[in-house]
Amino acid sequence: MIPEKALIAQIRRLAKTPLAKTRVAKSRNNPAVLAGIGDDCAVLRLARRSGNQVDTLVTTDFSLEGVHFRRDWHSPESVGHRCLARGLSDIAAMGGEPLAAFLSLALPRRLPQSWINRFAGGLLSLAEKYAVTLAGGDTAQSPNGILADIVVLGAVPKGKALLRSGARPGDRIYLSGELGGSAATLRQMQKNPRRKLNPRDYPRHFFPEPRVKLGQVLREKDLASAMIDTSDGLSTDLAHICEESGVGAELQAELIPRSRIGRALQEVDVEFALHGGEDYELLFTAPPHKRVPARISGIPITQIGQITRGRRIFLMNHSGAAHELKPQGWEHFRK
Amino acid sequence: MIPEKALIAQIRRLAKTPLAKTRVAKSRNNPAVLAGIGDDCAVLRLARRSGNQVDTLVTTDFSLEGVHFRRDWHSPESVGHRCLARGLSDIAAMGGEPLAAFLSLALPRRLPQSWINRFAGGLLSLAEKYAVTLAGGDTAQSPNGILADIVVLGAVPKGKALLRSGARPGDRIYLSGELGGSAATLRQMQKNPRRKLNPRDYPRHFFPEPRVKLGQVLREKDLASAMIDTSDGLSTDLAHICEESGVGAELQAELIPRSRIGRALQEVDVEFALHGGEDYELLFTAPPHKRVPARISGIPITQIGQITRGRRIFLMNHSGAAHELKPQGWEHFRK
Repeated sequence: MIPEKALIAQIRRLAKTPLAKTRVAKSRNNPAVLAGIGDDCAVLRLARRSGNQVDTLVTTDFSLEGVHFRRDWHSPESVGHRCLARGLSDIAAMGGEPLAAFLSLALPRRLPQSWINRFAGGLLSLAEKYAVTLAGGDTAQSPNGILADIVVLGAVPKGKALLRSGARPGDRIYLSGELGGSAATLRQMQKNPRRKLNPRDYPRHFFPEPRVKLGQVLREKDLASAMIDTSDGLSTDLAHICEESGVGAELQAELIPRSRIGRALQEVDVEFALHGGEDYELLFTAPPHKRVPARISGIPITQIGQITRGRRIFLMNHSGAAHELKPQGWEHFRK
Repeated sequence: MIPEKALIAQIRRLAKTPLAKTRVAKSRNNPAVLAGIGDDCAVLRLARRSGNQVDTLVTTDFSLEGVHFRRDWHSPESVGHRCLARGLSDIAAMGGEPLAAFLSLALPRRLPQSWINRFAGGLLSLAEKYAVTLAGGDTAQSPNGILADIVVLGAVPKGKALLRSGARPGDRIYLSGELGGSAATLRQMQKNPRRKLNPRDYPRHFFPEPRVKLGQVLREKDLASAMIDTSDGLSTDLAHICEESGVGAELQAELIPRSRIGRALQEVDVEFALHGGEDYELLFTAPPHKRVPARISGIPITQIGQITRGRRIFLMNHSGAAHELKPQGWEHFRK
């Protein structure tokens, strides 16, 4: 049984035109998914993976037209990719292995068939890359705009999920990759709404790669004490770790790696790196005695500060002056 | 940790006003939910229940304003109740035990605080009744209307989920409760949009009770060979069983129990019982040698026909004349 086929058929009934060209990801045989689309529920056997007991991870994320994407700015492939990437990134942030996804999709009546095909293509390509089975979902007519809600289930060895609450004073703060690329791209589109950006020059915004492998390595090697993905922006996501762990933090402004975007690979403004969301990097803490490599699974890892006893977060400049960093809360198009 | 509190807090931040009066269901200590809202994912330990291995059930269902409910027809409590009832009914249709729910909720900017409080009250009352923990979700601003997507996870003993595909020729077809009450109520509101109906007189539409206990009893006693819930209407849901099982069916028109609605308890038209959706009863088949009681867990069970070899579904009247019954596909407000 190939569950994707059944969901595509359901979307086709909804769209009332053929979906012949839709590329269906060849889902690898997933022993966890016993029954997918075509019954009242999907049936998953999550109890054990290779003989060891596991805990199950569940995450849900909206992708709403006009809130998370715009049809005139984002290609259907990008919308499909980003929809699933949000969920995969949450699984990565727990050090987990993604297993199955569920897509609830409401479409307006007059949506072109090609949009649906290309959306499904973007989503299923990413699903195939991470061996995630699209195991179910729901479809509906949308009264206004495209509405998607993705659920991703994952697994992690029993008791080993990397939570936000494990940071301790003295722990170092690390970041994968670079920050600000996604928000700075959005700002460029807001400034020049008619200029079409080439997604290849702005990959972190249009096709962000969830750090699934990195998250698993950090968990397997027991390197991280706390972890989160940077979906809401560094200032907000670090505040989440501090709040859940009951600690504070000091960041070194000049150490925060900033994205380079566009054909000219221009470095983004520090404000985007501090407060811009949707970069989907991993932000984690590690005790000082742990040796964290400068590169894991091909991704650069940078130490950007350390955890403190106080409950506040300070940003230090190169001369040692500090100012408090307040979480600004990423709001997509509203900034 | 009470995950409901964290989600309510998240909804409060979204709505930017206090939620003091929101009633939070006292979730019983749910050993399956290790970490809920407040991290990247919920962490569930689903591996075993009371020493036996289990399979995990997953279902997702949209509740969209203008598609599944109207704010001028449905109270917030009814919208919240129906939102979760849809998911619980899917778990019931597999003979499963519901464990945890995840709510993705997008709200328009100007939604009154009282609406959110009352919606949460309706949803959490039902969650409490079935000991389901609200373990996570997502919140967003909605560009248009209220958008909810509910995910329910459940458990069933390994290999025991009641699928749609188990019906065999000669099996009897049974139905719990009565049909048509929900759709006939909707028709009344469509005819007189300004007349306010008293939900107490139309419980099956405004506060449908998912048949969770009944589904479990049918599975435990090994009575049913196939099962589905009547969310899309008898003609469509029976067609799903026939399609998945590779069989046909004969229904006796006069045996189909029809709802009585309103203060006058008027019996609904047979068309509503045949094609109206959202009754959330259980439709199941059982081999002829099984003794199916006339009442299970207080709910009347009626034999309404039998499974045949052909692939088509026929409706027989009292004089023995037959006509083919085509699935009509329930479309909420579009009928």
